[in-house]
Amino acid sequence: MNTIEIINKKKYGKELSYEEIEHIVNGYVNNSIPDYQISSWLMAVYFQGLNSDETSALTDLMVKSGETIDLSFLNTTVVDKHSTGGVGDKVSLIVAPIITSLGIPFAKMSGRGLGHTGGTVDKLESIKGFHTELPLQRFKDQVKELGIALVGQSGNLVPADKKIYALRDVTGTVDSIPLIASSIMSKKIASGADAIVLDIKVGNGAFMKTEEEAKKLAETMVAIGKKLNRETVAVLTNMDQPLGTEIGNGNEVLEAVKLLRDQEYSQDLYDVSVEIAAQMVFLAGKATTEEQARKLVKEVIQSGEAYEKFVTFIKAQDGKVDSIHEIEAKQSIDVNAEQAGYIASIETQQLGEAAMLLGAGRKTKDDQIDHQVGITFHVKTGDRLQAGAKLATIHTNMEDNDTVIKKIKDAITISENPVQVKPSVIGIVN
Amino acid sequence: MNTIEIINKKKYGKELSYEEIEHIVNGYVNNSIPDYQISSWLMAVYFQGLNSDETSALTDLMVKSGETIDLSFLNTTVVDKHSTGGVGDKVSLIVAPIITSLGIPFAKMSGRGLGHTGGTVDKLESIKGFHTELPLQRFKDQVKELGIALVGQSGNLVPADKKIYALRDVTGTVDSIPLIASSIMSKKIASGADAIVLDIKVGNGAFMKTEEEAKKLAETMVAIGKKLNRETVAVLTNMDQPLGTEIGNGNEVLEAVKLLRDQEYSQDLYDVSVEIAAQMVFLAGKATTEEQARKLVKEVIQSGEAYEKFVTFIKAQDGKVDSIHEIEAKQSIDVNAEQAGYIASIETQQLGEAAMLLGAGRKTKDDQIDHQVGITFHVKTGDRLQAGAKLATIHTNMEDNDTVIKKIKDAITISENPVQVKPSVIGIVN
Repeated sequence: MNTIEIINKKKYGKELSYEEIEHIVNGYVNNSIPDYQISSWLMAVYFQGLNSDETSALTDLMVKSGETIDLSFLNTTVVDKHSTGGVGDKVSLIVAPIITSLGIPFAKMSGRGLGHTGGTVDKLESIKGFHTELPLQRFKDQVKELGIALVGQSGNLVPADKKIYALRDVTGTVDSIPLIASSIMSKKIASGADAIVLDIKVGNGAFMKTEEEAKKLAETMVAIGKKLNRETVAVLTNMDQPLGTEIGNGNEVLEAVKLLRDQEYSQDLYDVSVEIAAQMVFLAGKATTEEQARKLVKEVIQSGEAYEKFVTFIKAQDGKVDSIHEIEAKQSIDVNAEQAGYIASIETQQLGEAAMLLGAGRKTKDDQIDHQVGITFHVKTGDRLQAGAKLATIHTNMEDNDTVIKKIKDAITISENPVQVKPSVIGIVN
Repeated sequence: MNTIEIINKKKYGKELSYEEIEHIVNGYVNNSIPDYQISSWLMAVYFQGLNSDETSALTDLMVKSGETIDLSFLNTTVVDKHSTGGVGDKVSLIVAPIITSLGIPFAKMSGRGLGHTGGTVDKLESIKGFHTELPLQRFKDQVKELGIALVGQSGNLVPADKKIYALRDVTGTVDSIPLIASSIMSKKIASGADAIVLDIKVGNGAFMKTEEEAKKLAETMVAIGKKLNRETVAVLTNMDQPLGTEIGNGNEVLEAVKLLRDQEYSQDLYDVSVEIAAQMVFLAGKATTEEQARKLVKEVIQSGEAYEKFVTFIKAQDGKVDSIHEIEAKQSIDVNAEQAGYIASIETQQLGEAAMLLGAGRKTKDDQIDHQVGITFHVKTGDRLQAGAKLATIHTNMEDNDTVIKKIKDAITISENPVQVKPSVIGIVN
């Protein structure tokens, strides 16, 4: 097969066969096709797209490019979740013990954060002693015994996706819906998921800025799931403001714990977590209606079962639960409103970047994270406030915080008039 | 400057600044930008195009990437010609002595052929003893003394174009009008041209299949010329059939000689050659109207001056003029019409490929050319003929010529009804 012909075929908007996509994927993995041909093919894909058959083929071939995790010994439907990444997104921490409490195994390989969005592995590592690098057998044993385990992505899963993603990252071909969709889905399928619930963030803090794009991505992934026999549901959730009140690592874990203990929580975080968990419960066949699934989810929060499961989980991976408490940065500085009014809009990505500047996130892969720093948010979009009201508190170990404070202030627009507030859960695609 | 941002800027259809294009071109030449970023940028350019400022900037930067030939010692306007490549295109051989006879220096760096189109250097090398690799100083001295010299492309002219073209060739990014235009114009400008006449071939034997594309390419190149102070005229000529009667090397030289000796010639070859030469004469300021320029051109053919100049030129580069005669392949085979009718259409590229199969052209850069083989064409589009009439004669050194004969027959469609014939010179863009 001729690589240049395949590039041209896609360039002219024609459909590629499974074999042609196989030629591209395998050729790149085994180094018989040079990266400069793959990058021009990726740019052609950016412009011409991939249809549902092509996207499924790409996903399938990326899965087949490496090892896969076999969780069939669990003898049950394994439901995984994935978030497209947002600011303050601690939903996995909450959902994991909830579904485990309802008898659904939670066997997750999770990522680290990069840029303005955080990663679940980083958040959990704020807990003293917690290990995210378990040998595969210990991971499987723990899921079998406790129903729950969470590790960092490791091993030789989807090497094609790793290699292609690294190339996309430096060739301006990241923001292609079929490429994003196949990348995510291949990782979920290779990690052993039978069914998948996607949390697709929409808004100025998300990768997908508009509902239209998010819906397109959702539909693309649901279609891949259908073709590859993995039931998939996508939940579109609002990322026009940080989710919950905390942005960071240690402080996000504490916020998750407070919700699981049914103490205090931000309504948006509660609503999104319940919906994601309920969709997982429904896909696992543990409820006959979505409404019943939501009810079951709320019950295990209220009863404390979910929190107990969380404690068991943290201990199983050597974490000290006692270390989860108020943040211990050197200083906390309040950021106050300069005028009265309504919170009209929040540039959420700016806030994620502000947290990153404090040290809560990574600008490049090699950066170290400071688990003790972050931002506590005191307002939500639509809130009415007086001049001087606390907007946020930064927890910092830096001397000079002017840039961060300015970034936070600049990110928040206060209007004189009441504003319409978007729902936390925008819609469901299945 | 950030390469990924520049790729994205073009991807989103925004205009790049001179400095941004400089970053790309220089970065590629000095190896600070990897080829996989250049190829994704090229594919983005394929889809989003380059406007007139961007295309001129790219051309200018490619010229500046290497050496340039200084012909200012000639103290006159140096006019160069370029053909986008066709089948049977021996126009340079004819035009060169014509314009030299009219006092215009012809100092040309020409290319070799690849694929179905031939190259002037290959054709001239069919003349025994003829040298196309002259040292730069001898090239300049010869132009000064005789007004005419033609050499193969050499030296470190436009290294950026060489490197970018090699990458385009393997990444599906050849057929982009601004990239084609800047590649051609940079070579002409670097070779010392003050003014440029472009022969843009249009039709099934040309790179540009439609008048619309050809016109776009013409306008793009004329605009580059304007911005970079090189007066440029583009002549659109028909390539829906081979130009003249001969396809090959030795036989094409002989055809050119016959025209220059005003003996016998195909009207299309005469018309195209006169128009290209006349445009060069006009741009050089040797005629006050195009019509006057055409008249001067025809006169130096008729008077024999052009042919004398041709002989002087061949001798100056050590060629034996006596060696230009009827082709000496092992055998000649006629290809006859199987039905009566009118020549309705000719798949010209197929004919170029048939000649290549005989050995008259190269499939890959390293192939050797057999200067003695080729095809003589006996018909033109619109001709009426009887069944059994000679369509073509192949001159071959091969044993088995069935594939070639079939290719020629398949390329020619004979219709029962008279057909409309396109003019040889389709239009002029300036």
